[in-house]
Formats: sequence, structure tokens, C-alpha cells
Amino acid sequence: MVPRYSRPAMSAIWAPENRYRIWFEIEALACEAMAELGEIPKESARTIRERGDAAMAAFSSVDLDRIDAIEAETRHDVIAFLTWLAEKIGPDSRFVHLGMTSSDVLDTCLAVQLTQATDILLEGLDSVLAALKKQAFAHKYTLTIGRSHAIHAEPTSFGLKMAGHYAEFVRNRERLLTARAEIATCAISGAVGTFAHLDPKIEEFVADKLGLKIEPVSTQVIPRDRHAAYFCALAVIASGIERLATEVRHLQRSEVREAEEFFHPGQKGSSAMPHKRNPVLSENLTGLARLIRSHVVPALENVALWHERDISHSAVERNICPDGTIGLDFALARLAGMMDKLVVYPEQMAANLESLGGVVHSGEVLLALARAGVLREDAYRIVQRCAMATWTKLGKPDGRSFRENLGDDPDIVGKVAPEVLDAAMDSRAHLKAVDARFRLVFGEPGPAA
Amino acid sequence: MVPRYSRPAMSAIWAPENRYRIWFEIEALACEAMAELGEIPKESARTIRERGDAAMAAFSSVDLDRIDAIEAETRHDVIAFLTWLAEKIGPDSRFVHLGMTSSDVLDTCLAVQLTQATDILLEGLDSVLAALKKQAFAHKYTLTIGRSHAIHAEPTSFGLKMAGHYAEFVRNRERLLTARAEIATCAISGAVGTFAHLDPKIEEFVADKLGLKIEPVSTQVIPRDRHAAYFCALAVIASGIERLATEVRHLQRSEVREAEEFFHPGQKGSSAMPHKRNPVLSENLTGLARLIRSHVVPALENVALWHERDISHSAVERNICPDGTIGLDFALARLAGMMDKLVVYPEQMAANLESLGGVVHSGEVLLALARAGVLREDAYRIVQRCAMATWTKLGKPDGRSFRENLGDDPDIVGKVAPEVLDAAMDSRAHLKAVDARFRLVFGEPGPAA
Amino acid sequence: MVPRYSRPAMSAIWAPENRYRIWFEIEALACEAMAELGEIPKESARTIRERGDAAMAAFSSVDLDRIDAIEAETRHDVIAFLTWLAEKIGPDSRFVHLGMTSSDVLDTCLAVQLTQATDILLEGLDSVLAALKKQAFAHKYTLTIGRSHAIHAEPTSFGLKMAGHYAEFVRNRERLLTARAEIATCAISGAVGTFAHLDPKIEEFVADKLGLKIEPVSTQVIPRDRHAAYFCALAVIASGIERLATEVRHLQRSEVREAEEFFHPGQKGSSAMPHKRNPVLSENLTGLARLIRSHVVPALENVALWHERDISHSAVERNICPDGTIGLDFALARLAGMMDKLVVYPEQMAANLESLGGVVHSGEVLLALARAGVLREDAYRIVQRCAMATWTKLGKPDGRSFRENLGDDPDIVGKVAPEVLDAAMDSRAHLKAVDARFRLVFGEPGPAA
Amino acid sequence: MVPRYSRPAMSAIWAPENRYRIWFEIEALACEAMAELGEIPKESARTIRERGDAAMAAFSSVDLDRIDAIEAETRHDVIAFLTWLAEKIGPDSRFVHLGMTSSDVLDTCLAVQLTQATDILLEGLDSVLAALKKQAFAHKYTLTIGRSHAIHAEPTSFGLKMAGHYAEFVRNRERLLTARAEIATCAISGAVGTFAHLDPKIEEFVADKLGLKIEPVSTQVIPRDRHAAYFCALAVIASGIERLATEVRHLQRSEVREAEEFFHPGQKGSSAMPHKRNPVLSENLTGLARLIRSHVVPALENVALWHERDISHSAVERNICPDGTIGLDFALARLAGMMDKLVVYPEQMAANLESLGGVVHSGEVLLALARAGVLREDAYRIVQRCAMATWTKLGKPDGRSFRENLGDDPDIVGKVAPEVLDAAMDSRAHLKAVDARFRLVFGEPGPAA
Repeated sequence: MVPRYSRPAMSAIWAPENRYRIWFEIEALACEAMAELGEIPKESARTIRERGDAAMAAFSSVDLDRIDAIEAETRHDVIAFLTWLAEKIGPDSRFVHLGMTSSDVLDTCLAVQLTQATDILLEGLDSVLAALKKQAFAHKYTLTIGRSHAIHAEPTSFGLKMAGHYAEFVRNRERLLTARAEIATCAISGAVGTFAHLDPKIEEFVADKLGLKIEPVSTQVIPRDRHAAYFCALAVIASGIERLATEVRHLQRSEVREAEEFFHPGQKGSSAMPHKRNPVLSENLTGLARLIRSHVVPALENVALWHERDISHSAVERNICPDGTIGLDFALARLAGMMDKLVVYPEQMAANLESLGGVVHSGEVLLALARAGVLREDAYRIVQRCAMATWTKLGKPDGRSFRENLGDDPDIVGKVAPEVLDAAMDSRAHLKAVDARFRLVFGEPGPAA
Repeated sequence: MVPRYSRPAMSAIWAPENRYRIWFEIEALACEAMAELGEIPKESARTIRERGDAAMAAFSSVDLDRIDAIEAETRHDVIAFLTWLAEKIGPDSRFVHLGMTSSDVLDTCLAVQLTQATDILLEGLDSVLAALKKQAFAHKYTLTIGRSHAIHAEPTSFGLKMAGHYAEFVRNRERLLTARAEIATCAISGAVGTFAHLDPKIEEFVADKLGLKIEPVSTQVIPRDRHAAYFCALAVIASGIERLATEVRHLQRSEVREAEEFFHPGQKGSSAMPHKRNPVLSENLTGLARLIRSHVVPALENVALWHERDISHSAVERNICPDGTIGLDFALARLAGMMDKLVVYPEQMAANLESLGGVVHSGEVLLALARAGVLREDAYRIVQRCAMATWTKLGKPDGRSFRENLGDDPDIVGKVAPEVLDAAMDSRAHLKAVDARFRLVFGEPGPAA
Repeated sequence: MVPRYSRPAMSAIWAPENRYRIWFEIEALACEAMAELGEIPKESARTIRERGDAAMAAFSSVDLDRIDAIEAETRHDVIAFLTWLAEKIGPDSRFVHLGMTSSDVLDTCLAVQLTQATDILLEGLDSVLAALKKQAFAHKYTLTIGRSHAIHAEPTSFGLKMAGHYAEFVRNRERLLTARAEIATCAISGAVGTFAHLDPKIEEFVADKLGLKIEPVSTQVIPRDRHAAYFCALAVIASGIERLATEVRHLQRSEVREAEEFFHPGQKGSSAMPHKRNPVLSENLTGLARLIRSHVVPALENVALWHERDISHSAVERNICPDGTIGLDFALARLAGMMDKLVVYPEQMAANLESLGGVVHSGEVLLALARAGVLREDAYRIVQRCAMATWTKLGKPDGRSFRENLGDDPDIVGKVAPEVLDAAMDSRAHLKAVDARFRLVFGEPGPAA
Repeated sequence: MVPRYSRPAMSAIWAPENRYRIWFEIEALACEAMAELGEIPKESARTIRERGDAAMAAFSSVDLDRIDAIEAETRHDVIAFLTWLAEKIGPDSRFVHLGMTSSDVLDTCLAVQLTQATDILLEGLDSVLAALKKQAFAHKYTLTIGRSHAIHAEPTSFGLKMAGHYAEFVRNRERLLTARAEIATCAISGAVGTFAHLDPKIEEFVADKLGLKIEPVSTQVIPRDRHAAYFCALAVIASGIERLATEVRHLQRSEVREAEEFFHPGQKGSSAMPHKRNPVLSENLTGLARLIRSHVVPALENVALWHERDISHSAVERNICPDGTIGLDFALARLAGMMDKLVVYPEQMAANLESLGGVVHSGEVLLALARAGVLREDAYRIVQRCAMATWTKLGKPDGRSFRENLGDDPDIVGKVAPEVLDAAMDSRAHLKAVDARFRLVFGEPGPAA
């Protein structure tokens, strides 16, 4: 992920230093387990831990360069690290990695990194939830037009709109928790996963210390269906971000102007057109969503490794693990800030709601006719006729409101009382379920009307 | 999905008849709820139910044609159905669909269809699990070479291989159950989901009768993150199918010949080469996996509908819902049958295991040297040297086995006892964890050695 | 592809009848080539042609059932066909398929089907181009606001908008022609493509008769990079359809109302809201674009067949070849009709253009200040200030137009003459390049202003 | 793209320095064009060029930081650059970017970067072609078994195998050239692309100097169908890389051992198993192919920008443009090296070819029976029977070769002469078309047999 879309805490998880720190931790824990099982001298395990901890604490770019130099020779990254570590630890290093295979280290490390990353993502989701709840509560009863097909449908509240997105992000949080459990496993099972040279108790010990579960059957690698499921979860979340971003982009468009991203003092919207204030954050989120979604297919293609394992997944994961988590972290932070500071224009919402001459109440009128005993087919034709008469003359001198047209219509007069037609024009009738739905979504009703 | 890859029970779920049956059920249930709430006459609800049930029972291609004809006029599928239904029910039909919108019917129906489909898929997974367990138990202690990078690594058991796939399919079953819960929701909330014209108790009533949960916030549509998550689950399962299919394809290749798809009497492998017996089932499963995976991206793109809803998702779902579930159903059935009837050749497995002159035991020798106090780096060099000497002369007159080379090596003689080297060549040492792992995966150990 | 999105001519290409017809044609042509080369009796080739032609002419569902029955036994589709054909032809059938392999027939047939399909798609593109040209010419000088980020930017013409889409579809036509050439190859090279049992002249002969080129190296199959490139082209075209569909969806939204899909008499937009007129065609095209795009990944995954070939691509192609071409054919026809009948509202375009109080001319004012020697940074600040003053009071009693604010601004007065400011407010200045651009795109200027 | 998979020359194209250099070049060229048109003082254009060139020549991290600081304030990257540039140029900077919009700079710059990148990729393809040709010529007549479904089919030559991949890479080269032309366009058309403030001659001038074509209709942005087509081409190439990599992985697997990636002195295949020599390069290429393919979908999703443009494509392109070209550059270089140094084992190829007891000649025997007048169906049954008898007893004491079984078969004896059967067992008969095919693919035959 380019630096522009990276935040430090998440990037640090994927830095070589963190990876080597975790590699060492796994090796040290395995040694401690072996020492406890009496397989290697306790003294050696202690030396490994102490000197290794010291080496990791003092880890610098000199060490990075040294490891890279060894890898250039051996063409094997874990062996390069172990060789460097041996240089730091001395003769006791011969007990390090005993009976283990590189994948034991690599895959367990990846599990640790992904859980670290996920914990940050969960915080990000919480920020988004907080911002959405704030807007939902602030606008619980702010009337706005609901739109299907981007065509005015019936009134709703802006708070309910936000509640819908909130509910989706609650689901996304659940999905991420499930995904976290998917990838939080540990494998210390040796070549092709048979524990031929390793006591399974070592795996249990390391898993326990790292907060992971043991992998039931690792075939040298942790099976990649877990990671595929993980990236699917990120992609579903990204798509939820896109849905909300798309909403904001629509609300800010010049003809709608119902809400707007906060425009910073000093900000410039366009190099050529000083009047521009563009929804660049939500557009950016749309693009980021595309990126994060694009990781799903390679993650799925990684599942079918050959036999007990091949290494084709590695190039993919070296990119999508950082890119996916860094990108989503950035997107969630950006989304939370954007929604928190979103400028909402209730007056413009009201104005837009009225802009179609009342035809948005056609559904209620249809029901009134049905209640009056008119057959659905006939009622539909009558109401559609009155609505279209208003619609096609919107803004024209001879335009008439939907209520006016209804009031004159020979098929309505005498069937539906004027008071009923008046009542049908009341947008506030559409708010009656808001309170109950808020209780359902937020567990609390929020502010009163 | 082309008929070639379709099975009748799953296809029937997506046939128009089933869709219309569910549509009617939703409408009838909604009427019954309204009648109970006193909103419409109980008598009418009864008439609707009775005449509707009769119409659905007698449903034939004549009805299909009639509905299609109405749709050609109205260009709206639900209105077409309602009009046809009104013709069957008579004047009481004016109480049908009262205050509801098409999406209430369409989306709730889709939830019912997807749960029906998922229940069949769960059976399919169970068949795959049964076949895998059968092979795992049958070959719990059948020695075979484990391969990393498709290169012989260390021995393992064919049963453990199968157990690994079994464990993956257990995870897939969990994922499918989660996915089922994702899509099993009901929305009867009216235009833009405000319940303006509908008592929320109607939704509760219908949901309860259909075995669904109510959707917390539907915005006329059930939010599409649910369906995206569902298709992700199918794709992860498909990738697991591909992994197993790829294994079989490898095992059957002419140079490996460790297992083979059952070849039917009368079957022909090639029009030109009568000797051919090809792994066509597993290749076919590989292709089907690609297809099912391809549904993920459009499903994710469907999430960001505009405002309260648009209809862009519809064209996608009309295809991927049947294609995905029909395709996966077929694939699971094919996979279960293929694995159940898989012909396994333990003798060939044993032969392949020995074919590299014993170098596959290099890891154990490395450990023996380490235990003898040789530094990892040195030990590695010594063992690599002996292994390569065997490898590069495989099948040549002057070729020598790994054991022979080790026995002569000046850096080994005197450090590792011949008995230790002999023991290191014993493949059965790699089976010691099998029993415990079987208990973990299957909850039972399976047959004794 | 579901019938709803299928048109007969394209569907017929993928019907079994057409496939068998092409299979026979390939076999018959190969026999004729062999006869000419003296490899089989001329008399036999004639018999094969005559009896085969007769059988194909009389081909009915009885034949389909017979072939299916044989395939159920042999589990091989081409062998099933050949067996059926032998029943029709008699003893001379022993010369049919001589030295050939199934793929020779299957892959060459697919090439023929795809070229047939592509020719229909080219017609579809031509219809779209015609509709776009019609709208471009009709609205060459129809002023409308250009929007970046969905925010009003500067005026443009609706004709130029259409010209941009026209230019994209011209590129799409080029891409489809290139894609057609990619897949229009013939392979009659036998098992693993060595011509061991076939004279290469047979391939040349068949290719020539079918209007194909010979495949330089077929390895039993025609290499699948060709098909991958083909589906990429379809996906790029689909994305162009989506771009245009998205434009229409935006233009029709209630707050914009600059254009509208034709609404048929009798059409109903919503079952619940009789006032609705939704852009359902363009939304549907958006969904179809997602479907067609989804074929790219499996097509790319099909490229890496194992060794000389495997059959994993087959399941994919049996679906995406018909689905992709049928879906795109339907989409192009729908798009052409939609654009041809698109109802355009120039008055509403003019009204929207004026709705932001003239701030859309900020760019020209910025330039005027620059020409007056004001530094870019300063000029920007001045113009932004005036524009925001207008923007934030749009529709309010104390709102003032951009021109008014500019006229009063102390940093402008004396630097830019009032006439220059007046001229800067003239939208028609943005049309000056239209004519030249039309010449470039259409090869002709279209109507005069 | 992570540094591990990046090469300096390609990475440099995407470094900020190169981007700013091109931005300046575009601005400077535009000024020169304006000066030539008399729109700005020639003197100023000269000053801009001279001071700008000097600033770019001295460009350092100080400048990068300064630009970043301005962007933090303006939140607009191009304005930040222009402000920095103004600081370097002084008052004449007011003529820079006059009437232009950021996209004129950004999109034209991207075109330049992508053409630079493509030229490097073309060199990479040439290296791959050279390596493939080398192997093809070296092994023009090296017999090897051709495999369909990974099952031995009929003999072929390793050179022909290589020729097939060569032919695919020739097509890939063509595709990349087409893709280069797709994205090599220039837009200097101003806000929403109307040339309202810009003479189209400026665009022509800049395009000409940069080796680009003018974009017929840019709507502020260069239309993204061009970039989508570009990434499709990269993905098809990546899939071709995967096909070849997959071939090598298969050939190197322990049971096949027909070819092997060069194993460097000092290289280590596994931390646990010193005997390992894994095809890690080809596996890595498989993973890289997945990554490069994954860019296609977001690139396609970028096409449908809203109205004249939105900015959602930007986040995608900031990642996939460098990632795609850097990744493919690395992959091509790795592939070329791998194929150039590939170790081929003709003896093992010969051994494998013989390993199925001659059944691979079943096709030729089938033809011999057909020529002898036996009906296809009967001949097939006879040959299949003889082949299966050999196959099922491979390696067993009572196993018999295919030739032996044929020689005894009562349905063959008397129909096909022993000499004909003997001749059918000759693998060299499968090489007869190699020479002609080489001429077709390489334009020259290569070495004689």
C-alpha cells in the first residue's frame, strides 16, 4: 500500500522488525517448551531467550542488512534469520528450530501479525460505529426523501438511513471477529505436518503463549482456506464502506446538497475551478474498496496448494496481507472521521422532499383508494394518472400539485374524503417506526422526537 | 448453470413454479397477519389462502404464460404475478400486497430459496465428509510420501492427508452454516423500509412462519452485504474442492499413479488414444471451482446499491443464485462420489516413497547430527552433500543410497552411530502422531494400526 | 444466462444443434481434405458428406436423446457424437475422425461459434454507435453542466458527452475485432498437437473453408490465452456499457431530471408507488456489466492448463461462452434501444446549469485575474471567496449571484472590467471546440449551431 | 509491490521524482505552446523552462518535503506542486497551468509513465522469448512424452513444447504493443474537457513532444477503458507466465524430474530437510501471476466514473500502476533467467516416455486397425483391452508390454502385420512436423535433427 494510504501503527505490524521479533518469539517459546519436556537443556533455553531478547531489543538496520546478505547466499529467508540469530546466541543456537520447519515459524508468525492487525481494524470499526450512531441520534427525526432507483420514493428519516449503515457495520464487526478466529491458529508440526521430530506439546505451549489455537491438521502450512475466508471478510467490509461512501457522494452532488464532507479552511477543490468542493474522501473510499476487494480472488486461488504445500501463496500474501489491512485501516479511519464531521443540511432535505409536488405520497393514496374498495388495478391507474400530471409539469406555469390533481379527479371525489387526502400528504407519518427500529439496532431509542 | 452440471432438486428451487409458490406464501401469510391485526377481514384472508393454494396446486405452463404476458405489458414481474393472482382470487385480492412493496416479496422469497438451497448444500458437504472419513480410516496408516513444492519431503500417511481435507470441510460446513444465518432474514417493511403502511407485527409473523429472522433495517431491500458474505462462503468451499481435486489430479498422473478416479466399464478416455484413463472428474471440479469463485466479485459489487436501493443487483442475482448453488451442489455430489470410489494404490505409494534412495530422511539425520553436537550450519552442509550425491545419480549404475553415503561420510562416522542412521531411515516413525490427530479431527481414533 | 436476458439468434449459436452441425462440418471437411490427399477414398468422403448433411438436416430431439444415451455410457461427448454419426453414415464412418482427437473438433468448433457470436456482437455495437451518434448530433449544442466529482464544474454540451461515449464504443469495436482475430484459429493437429497421424494440409484446408487461421502450435488444444484475451475484451465493453448506464441513471435521478429512459404506456414503476418512473434499463445494464466482467477471472485461470492440456477449462467455457456472448448481446441491444429512445430535457439542463448562481464560471474569472497580472495564489483566494459566498447562501433570501459578488469585490474592482466579468458568465463560450471534436470523432461535423 | 519483487529501473518510473519531472515537462511544454500561439510572453516561457529545469535537476528530498507540506494544507497534490514550482520560478509562474486542470497534468503524466514502463516490459518479453528460443532450438528433437490430463498421451519434442510457449509470448508481445497504444494519449483540454480556456493546438504540441496521440474526447480525464484494457493485457501475459511456470513445476516434481530450475551453490531448499531442491522460482511466478491478475477487476471497475469524472480511480491506480508493472517486470526477468538456465534431462524424458510399457502408441495402433478395415468402435475396444492389460500390471512380475499384448491379440493377428505394429511403437514418428512448425513459429527451422 502506498504511504499515502498507510497509518503508522498498522504499517509497523508488517515491518521486518516486527516479523523478526515474532519469529524469535516463536523460536524462543519452542525452545522453552522443549526444555520443559527435557528435550534440550534448560540452561540453553534460557541463554537463547536472554541473548535473543537482547538482540531483538538492539535490532537495527545493521541487522536487517546482515540478514539480507545471508539470504542473498542461501536464497531462504528463515535460514538467513536463523543464521543471524546463531551469530547472536552462540553455540546454544544449535537447539533453535530443532525439528521445526520454516513454515512453522512463518505461518504462526503470520497468524500473530494478522491478529494484531485485526485488533486495530476492530478499533477502526468501533470508530465508524460511533460516528454513525452520533449522526443517527442527531438526525433521528430529520425528514428526508427515501430514494429507490435514485428516484424519490417515500419520506424517511436521515437517522434511519444512518441506522441502516450502523446495522451493517455491526454485522461487519461480527464478520471480522469470525475472521479473526479463522486465522488465529498455530502450527509447530514440522515437515509435512507429521510431528515426526516434534512433540505436539510444543505446539500447544507456543499456541497458548501466543493466544492462538492449535491447527488440527497442518500439512507443514496452515491451510489457506482460513486466509481466504479472512480476506473475504475484509472485502465485505470494504463493500460496506463503499455503500456508505456512495451515499455521501450522492448526497453531496450539486443538485442534491443534503450533506457535505467537511471542507477544511485552506482546502482547494480544483486547480482550475476555485468554486469546487468535492466529495474527495468518499470517492477515495470508493477506490480503496475496489483495491481491498481485489485481494479476494488471489486469496482464494491460494487455497489449492499442491500436495502438502507449495510456496505460490507467498508472493500473494507478502502483498495482500499488508495492503489489505493497511488499506482497510486507513479507510476505516477516514470513514470514521468523515462521518463524524459530515455536515448535514436538514433544510435542503426538506426542500428536496417537497420538490416533486407531493407525488411521493402516491403509495398512501393508493392504499386509501384500496380501503375505499377500489380494486388495486383501477386504483393504481387513477393514482398514476394524477401523479404523472404533476410530474410532467414540474416547475412549469401550469403545474399543479399532486394534492390538487387528486382533489379534482372524478374517480377519487366521493370515494376518498379530502381530510384523508390531506393526511396522506403528511411526511411525518413515515417516522412512526423509527423509535422501535432504533431500539432494535442500537439497544436504546436515542433522543425523543 | 448448464444442464450438464445441474441436479433436479437444486434446480427445482430456482424454477419459476417454486418462486411463485413462495411469493404466494409470503402474500398469504401477510394477509393472515393483517387479518389477525384486524386490518383486513378474516374472511378475505381465508379466501385468499384457499383460492391461492388451489391456484398454486394447479399451477401449470398456462399460468406461466399468462404471467409472462402481463409482464410484457407492465414490465414489472411482481405486478404481473399479483395481477394473475387477482384473476384467481377475485375481489378479495384487493387486500393482497396491501402497503407492501415488491421487494418485500422478492427479497424474502430469495431468503427462502437460499435457505432451501443451503440445506441441500449442507447434505452435500456431509456426503463429502463421509467419503473423506471413509478413505481416512481405510488408510490411516498407509504410508505415502509427503510433498512440499511437489518434491518429496518426508513420509506421512494417506489417512492423515484425507484427515486434513476432512478438517477443511468441517470448517466449510461451519462457514456455510454462518452464511445460511446471514441470508435467512425477512423484510416486510414497505417502500424504503419505513413501515409507513405496515404494522411491523406482520413482518414478525411472516418471518416466524418461514423460519427467518426479521431484518433490523431493510431499506426496501434486504442489505446485500448478507448475500456477498454468502457467496464468499460458497467460493471458499469451492476452493477447498479445488484443493482436493488438485490432489487427486496429481496422484493420478502417470508418473505418480498412487490413486485413480474410478473408471467405469464402457468409459472412454480419449477418442484418439484408447489407452487413456484421465482424471476428468477432478479436472471438472477444478473448472467448477473457478466458476463458483467468479460469483464473489459481482456479489460484492452488488453491496453498494444507491440510496435506499437500486435494481442493479437483480440481473446479477438472477444468474449467480441459481448458478452458484446448482454448481456447488453438483460439485459436492461429484466430489463425494469421486472420493468414495477413489481407487488407492498403497503399493505404488510405497514404491514412490522409496524412489529417491532414502534422501527423504535427511531431516531426521540432520537432527541426529545436531543431537551429536554438530552445529546446525555444519550439519546441514554434511547432510545436503550426502543427499545430493544420491539424488544426482538416481537410477544410474554408480548410484548409491542415502544410507550408504551417510555411512561413509567422514564427518558422520564416529559422530552418529550406524543404528541411529538405520533408525532414521524408518518411515513408520512419521506415523506416531496420526492417532492423536485423528482423535482431534474425527472425535475418534479410527482403526488401530 | 437466464432466458430473460437472452435473444434467440445468439442463443441458437450455443444450442446443441448448432454445435453438432459444426462438429459434423469439421469432420466432413477433414474427410474431404484426406480424400484430396489420397488418404481415404473419395467415394467415402462423398458418402460421409451426403449422409451426414442429410442427418444434420433432419436433426431432431430424437438424435439429441440418442447422443445423450451414448454419452451416458462412454462418458465422452465427442465419442458419443461420432458413434451416432456412424449409425447414420454406415461403414464409411470408419474414415471419420481418422487420426484426429476430440479437441480438434471441440476447439475448432468453439472458434467457429465465437466468431459467429462476435459477428452478432459487432452488429450490436453498431446499433449502439448509431444511437449515440443520433443523440450527439441532436444535441451537439445543447448546453448542460459538466460535472466532476458529481459537483457542477463548467458548462459543456450534451452532444459532446455523447461523442465521448461514441469514441469509447469505437474503441470497443476495435477491441472486439482484435478479439475476434484472437479466437479465430483452427487446430487439426491430433493428440498433443504433433500431426503424427495427420497431414498439416488437412488443418489448412479446414481452416480455409471455415474462415479461420491455423494455430501455429496447438498442443491438442488451442491455447487459452486467446480466449482469455477475448473475455477481457467483452469485459472492457461491458464496463463501457456500465459507464453510459451510470450516466443515464444520474441524469434521470429526481433532483437532476435531465434525461429519462422512455417510459412505455402501461408500464408500472413500482407495485406500491404509482408515481415511480425508474431508470430500470440502465440499472439492469449495470448489473449485466458486473456479470460479464465476472467471466474474466475464470477465463484467465483457464490459461495455465497442465502440460499439453487438461480439461478444467471446459466447465468454465461451457458456461461463460454462452453467458458472456448472450449477456453482452442482450446488453448491447438494450443499450442501443435505450439510447435511441432516450428522452432528453434541454430546458432542465439549462435550469440546472444556472442553479448554482453562476459559480461554475469561476475558472474563467480566475484566468481573467491572472491575465490582469494577479498571482495565481492570490487570484484563487479571491475567486474562491466570492464563489463560496454565493454557494453557502444558495436559495436564501440574502443570497447573491456570483457575478454580483465579483462585481463588489475590492480585489477585483479596477482589475477586471465589468464587461470581462459579464463575458466570463457566458456558457456558450464552452462550446467552441465542439465542432472540431465532432469532426475528429465522427469524421463529420454534424449539424451547425 | 514489496521491494523483494521490485527492480530499480521500473521502480524509478513510479518514484515521486519522476512524476514531478514529467509534471514539469508537461507544464513547460504547454507554456512553450502558449508562447508560440502568442498567448503568453515568450520570455516567460523561457524563464519557466530554464528555472524549472534547474529546479528539477536539483530536486532533492527537501523539495519532496516542501511539496508534502503544502499538500497537507491544500489537500490537493497538483496545487501543492504548482505552488512549489512558483516558489522556484517566481512571478512568471503565473503563466504556468493557465487554463489547465490538474487532470491534464495527471493523466498525461500517467500516459508517459505507462509508456516508459511498457518499454521496459517489452524488453522483458524479449528476454523471455530469447530464453524460450534457446531451449526450443537446443531440444528441437528431444523426445518427451506429451501429456493430456497429466496422463501420458503420445510422444512429442521438448522443443515443440517450448515453441508453443514461444508462440504464446509472441502473442503477448503483440498484446502489449496494442496496450501501449491504448494508453499513449495526451489530454490538455481543461475543465470537463471543453478547451474553453485552452487552444487545442497546445494539446497537439504537448502530445507530439511526448510521443503521444491526442485523446479524441477527454472529459477532464482520459477515459479509463484505455487503462482497463492495459491491465487486461498485463493479466493475460501473467497467465502465460503461470502456464510456463506450472509446466516447470510439473517437470521438476520428484516423480517426473525431466527438468529443474538451476540450483545455486550455497542455496538451501528447506530449513529442515537438506535434501530439498524446490522449484521456488516457478512457484513464485505462479503467485506473482495471481497478483497481477488481481488488478484487472479494479481497473475494470474504474471505467464507470461518474459524469465527466470522479476521483475514485485514483486510489486504485496509485497502487496497481506501480504494482502491476513492477510485478510483471520482476516476473519477466525472473522467468527469462529461469528458462535460460533451466536444467533439462533428456535421459529422464526418454525413461518416462517408456515407463508405461508402450501404451502411449495406442492411437497409432487404432489407426492401423482402422486402415485394416476394422470399424472404429471395434478397433477401439480391441486396443483399449490390450492397453489396459499392460497398464494394470505395470511393474508387476506378470506384466507385459503393449506390443506383446497386441502381438497376441486374436483380433489383431492376421489383420495388422507385425512390422506395422513395430513401426507403431516408434516415438520418432511424432517428430515429423516439428521442422515445419519451427519455421512457422520462429521464421527459421533451427538446428537439423
